[in-house]
Amino acid sequence: MTPAIALYKPQIPPNTGNISRLAVAVNAALHIVGKPAFSLDQKDLIRAGLDHWNALDLHLHQRFRDFYASRGVSRIVAVSKDAPVQYSDFMFQPDDILLFGNETQGLPPTLLSRCEHIVKIPMWGAVRSLNLSNAVAIVVYEAIRQGLAKGWIDQSSREYQRTYYRSPYASNSKVF
Amino acid sequence: MTPAIALYKPQIPPNTGNISRLAVAVNAALHIVGKPAFSLDQKDLIRAGLDHWNALDLHLHQRFRDFYASRGVSRIVAVSKDAPVQYSDFMFQPDDILLFGNETQGLPPTLLSRCEHIVKIPMWGAVRSLNLSNAVAIVVYEAIRQGLAKGWIDQSSREYQRTYYRSPYASNSKVF
Repeated sequence: MTPAIALYKPQIPPNTGNISRLAVAVNAALHIVGKPAFSLDQKDLIRAGLDHWNALDLHLHQRFRDFYASRGVSRIVAVSKDAPVQYSDFMFQPDDILLFGNETQGLPPTLLSRCEHIVKIPMWGAVRSLNLSNAVAIVVYEAIRQGLAKGWIDQSSREYQRTYYRSPYASNSKVF
Repeated sequence: MTPAIALYKPQIPPNTGNISRLAVAVNAALHIVGKPAFSLDQKDLIRAGLDHWNALDLHLHQRFRDFYASRGVSRIVAVSKDAPVQYSDFMFQPDDILLFGNETQGLPPTLLSRCEHIVKIPMWGAVRSLNLSNAVAIVVYEAIRQGLAKGWIDQSSREYQRTYYRSPYASNSKVF
């Protein structure tokens, strides 16, 4: 089981496209929290080249509090630039949900204050941030690296290579 | 010192844009090998929003053999889907050059046969590949993780936070 990915009000369709492709590639669920700045109508997305969209385990949450309430025993691990802990020093767990803010505003402080765990990606150079889909890829693959090393992801297991699970609720449905 | 990034004939400008942003963020050199499918004219790039382009340590090589000849003592570590070794099981070195093929064709077999080291990114799902900039981000940050753990990257060193070094040759010059 790979940790899930959650995007808060994503703004740029190609980023969500790259992230959804990544989610399918690693068999991770994708949560979209709040209203994105673009249409999630399946026809629009497939027209835009996201032909893997049908294979995606997608969960839509109208508000952050709905997402928060639905997390069950999963930890929400927020990724934000002002975090005290580096993402690669953090010990991920299989049912973690990795939460990312949007391209221009990141995660609002009020939401960050509700996240038990916040990690950052180190940077040194003269750019404000990494591309959102790159940030997601870095953190998701670090969680996978840890999972493979510790055995909670079995690279060759049949279970992991199963046909895609579709959530009976919200998956690919249009709630906005 | 962070391993360098090399792109072979990149095709999609926003991917090279995200990768150049990543390169500036981690202070890595970027090599572009062969003619890209888009203009590298600085004005065009800055018009396209790549305002970090001036801070980039960019090296252009007209042909693969020029790139290969210029590598010095650096190892070329190619990233390709048919590699026997997983990228996170590979031990990176500070002066490695991480080589990536382009978005539609990857690296040609004739070039791969000249690379001493080839690594892959594991995937399980129903997509052909990850986005190119995501693949670069995953491998570069794994090299950085190893460098921080082993001490060949010092996160707080002044040297690492220096003003950007510009290569006296090729940097930001137009060779095509």
